[in-house]
Amino acid sequence: MIKIIMHGCNGKMGQVISDLVKQDPEVEIVAGLDATDKFDNGFPVFTNIFECNVEADVIIDFSIAKAVDPLIEFAKERELPLVLCTTGLSEAQLKNVQEASTFIPILRSSNMSLGVNALVSLVKAATEMLANNNYDIEIIEKHHNLKVDAPSGTALMFSEAINSVLKDPYAYNYDRHDASVPRPKNEIGMHTVRGGTIVGEHSILFAGQDEVIEFKHTAQSKAIFANGAIKAAKYLSTKTKGMYDMNNVIFG
Amino acid sequence: MIKIIMHGCNGKMGQVISDLVKQDPEVEIVAGLDATDKFDNGFPVFTNIFECNVEADVIIDFSIAKAVDPLIEFAKERELPLVLCTTGLSEAQLKNVQEASTFIPILRSSNMSLGVNALVSLVKAATEMLANNNYDIEIIEKHHNLKVDAPSGTALMFSEAINSVLKDPYAYNYDRHDASVPRPKNEIGMHTVRGGTIVGEHSILFAGQDEVIEFKHTAQSKAIFANGAIKAAKYLSTKTKGMYDMNNVIFG
Amino acid sequence: MIKIIMHGCNGKMGQVISDLVKQDPEVEIVAGLDATDKFDNGFPVFTNIFECNVEADVIIDFSIAKAVDPLIEFAKERELPLVLCTTGLSEAQLKNVQEASTFIPILRSSNMSLGVNALVSLVKAATEMLANNNYDIEIIEKHHNLKVDAPSGTALMFSEAINSVLKDPYAYNYDRHDASVPRPKNEIGMHTVRGGTIVGEHSILFAGQDEVIEFKHTAQSKAIFANGAIKAAKYLSTKTKGMYDMNNVIFG
Amino acid sequence: MIKIIMHGCNGKMGQVISDLVKQDPEVEIVAGLDATDKFDNGFPVFTNIFECNVEADVIIDFSIAKAVDPLIEFAKERELPLVLCTTGLSEAQLKNVQEASTFIPILRSSNMSLGVNALVSLVKAATEMLANNNYDIEIIEKHHNLKVDAPSGTALMFSEAINSVLKDPYAYNYDRHDASVPRPKNEIGMHTVRGGTIVGEHSILFAGQDEVIEFKHTAQSKAIFANGAIKAAKYLSTKTKGMYDMNNVIFG
Repeated sequence: MIKIIMHGCNGKMGQVISDLVKQDPEVEIVAGLDATDKFDNGFPVFTNIFECNVEADVIIDFSIAKAVDPLIEFAKERELPLVLCTTGLSEAQLKNVQEASTFIPILRSSNMSLGVNALVSLVKAATEMLANNNYDIEIIEKHHNLKVDAPSGTALMFSEAINSVLKDPYAYNYDRHDASVPRPKNEIGMHTVRGGTIVGEHSILFAGQDEVIEFKHTAQSKAIFANGAIKAAKYLSTKTKGMYDMNNVIFG
Repeated sequence: MIKIIMHGCNGKMGQVISDLVKQDPEVEIVAGLDATDKFDNGFPVFTNIFECNVEADVIIDFSIAKAVDPLIEFAKERELPLVLCTTGLSEAQLKNVQEASTFIPILRSSNMSLGVNALVSLVKAATEMLANNNYDIEIIEKHHNLKVDAPSGTALMFSEAINSVLKDPYAYNYDRHDASVPRPKNEIGMHTVRGGTIVGEHSILFAGQDEVIEFKHTAQSKAIFANGAIKAAKYLSTKTKGMYDMNNVIFG
Repeated sequence: MIKIIMHGCNGKMGQVISDLVKQDPEVEIVAGLDATDKFDNGFPVFTNIFECNVEADVIIDFSIAKAVDPLIEFAKERELPLVLCTTGLSEAQLKNVQEASTFIPILRSSNMSLGVNALVSLVKAATEMLANNNYDIEIIEKHHNLKVDAPSGTALMFSEAINSVLKDPYAYNYDRHDASVPRPKNEIGMHTVRGGTIVGEHSILFAGQDEVIEFKHTAQSKAIFANGAIKAAKYLSTKTKGMYDMNNVIFG
Repeated sequence: MIKIIMHGCNGKMGQVISDLVKQDPEVEIVAGLDATDKFDNGFPVFTNIFECNVEADVIIDFSIAKAVDPLIEFAKERELPLVLCTTGLSEAQLKNVQEASTFIPILRSSNMSLGVNALVSLVKAATEMLANNNYDIEIIEKHHNLKVDAPSGTALMFSEAINSVLKDPYAYNYDRHDASVPRPKNEIGMHTVRGGTIVGEHSILFAGQDEVIEFKHTAQSKAIFANGAIKAAKYLSTKTKGMYDMNNVIFG
């Protein structure tokens, strides 16, 4: 049984992870860390991270950027592998994460879903196969009407993966309205659809001579991120110091 | 057998229509009108419209805006029903068309495809059913990488049909990139995808609470416009003066 | 405030409806009816339906077939409008429902979602417009891997709506594997996709000469049925005796 | 300039290839082989293959099974690389092809499209990544209403690629109608949609816990096979004896 400390246990993702862990005989949450201890989680919750003295194998983090610095101190001190799922870290924080990975194993990804990460790596492979064969690349993402960031971070994961294997990276085109020019080859069209309660859909098109290849990921709930975090925790619990990402989990 | 005069017979659409007419026992092209007589069409072609004295039942027009004025004179003079498929007419020309329809039957549509017109009228009905029930409307259109106008005229047919039944028309949003606000209710997101040789695809989304309804039209070739024009010609050949559109053909 | 009696209040759908009613200031559940009283619902629950003496405006039912007979007795006795959402009723039961509707208003639908019902009526209209124009009709439905009935009841709602406006109804083709014949005109291809946790997707294709028109409904959760049932209850609470369906709610 | 002999030059695919070759400065058709010499192709056509004495670098074949045996003799005799696109070869013929490849380079594929072959190899990679993570696999293919074989050969390319990397191959399920059982894990649902003039669409779904990954290929015309055959001819013209397939072209 792998023993997990859940950082951000009372947040939305922390709660989803706790629920899924209960149904998985291979893992168990032995302690939670959060600013407040407001729920009956069935495990001890520490509001002061450094008071947590429970024995564990790995930490899962889904919190907020400012909580990450003390978390890294704690993980180093306790020599615990850290699955770091909080996004929006500053440059300084990212550097701190990098340095910490010379002491402990750290796994970080912009999107914890196994399926999204698998598709990102397949889209990268598709770009290598097809980019020299005159395919135009377009990305369409759909989310609910309350999402304020555009494009989605996941859409950028796809576009950056594409650009990472192109000799000359493509520019992003967000608006063709009234442009009145044929499509330039060296761009990626980025389309942000917002409506209703759509959880998340990403479609990447490779449009060539008389054919279109489409890669599409549809999410139904946040459980896909929780599932990925738990898989990552199982994977990382036996690893040595270093930086890891979801590709290590997929191919590991 | 319905006798057709084809105006713009040597253009791309004129040629597609000629080919389809040959396979249809109900219709026949008895004369062509065009600036030059460069092809062996199998029917007489007149470069001066007023020299065309062939007996006919209806005119199909797929030409260019400046050729439309003499065409209307000709149609009125000959008292011939006119299927007018040329787009990009000026305000003055549209007024002229309207006046001519008090003498002869004229059918005009921004898109001659039967399927597109049927879908436009269904999307209009959907708006009447759903608009008061909190559905967000988004339009995604996809075309080949040489198309310079954005959004497509057909996408605007859909958005205008939607707005025609709303008490307060929705604004069009072409670019959400970096806006950082939740989606306003009273807008239609318009997305222009361009790539490869895509002939034409229009998708209209109604995204509500926990459900999405999608209406999608996919075109494989320009034959859909030719088919619609021929159906319109058959329909109009027996009609009296007045303005008509493809809805009359669909429901007639 | 419209007062609802919830029949089957402790079932899955009963619980979803209770949750949504709490967020809606126009409605309130004043009593529940169920075989057991196992949850803290915040309203009285009667395990013997005829002991329920709470004043109300309308009943919503999401239960099981055998619980429907006493429910109809109760509704007639109390002269209460009845939104009947339980499926799988026998011929005899359906006849009983019909007879009861000569005393009280009853609304019944195989699928309570507003969106599905709107789309069914639009697909029916599409069939009227397009069926004589040589379009082939195919239905693809996708659901989770635990669903045992195939095709889905909702897929049958669509196919029956299509057939209801055809002069000669089309047969259903469930398997073309190894048939080695061209597609007959007078059939509807029915395709049952099962996988993962897909909540429900229905796609109806009209494939014609060089064009395809697609109508697609995607459900994210059972809330769409609960929403529809609540809307139906509001609608029916002021109606007189007779049979109603979701179209009355949509167009009412 | 690479010199091509086109076997089956007067067939549908032979004509498409001839048209495309005319627009490509790197290649040229120097001779055609066919049963009859009925078109003005702009190159000499031999109805007796062994009379063709034109100097060339490579043969492209799109013919019929019975014409393949003499073709292989001819290719061996002339020591010419052979791009073999004819399908439906017998076991004996396939053995003959294999033996011939010990003398000359032969490239054979069930589907000559670069895009389809790229996607097949990506779907194979996806199976390796995802199959152990509880994703259900379904294949939906759509073609025109005159296609008699079901499922399509390309759908089988995808399903066989999937099975080639599974420890225990999955069975194909062509019809779930009335089965009334939950979906078994170890099957691939195969769905054959037929309608209108659809050129060809293949969709491969991986449906998991709260997410679906879709891979989709849409063909607009037979030009994709012609393009692939020309690319294969360029590739093969400089190779030595052996069996090749489109993956060599993609990755070569």
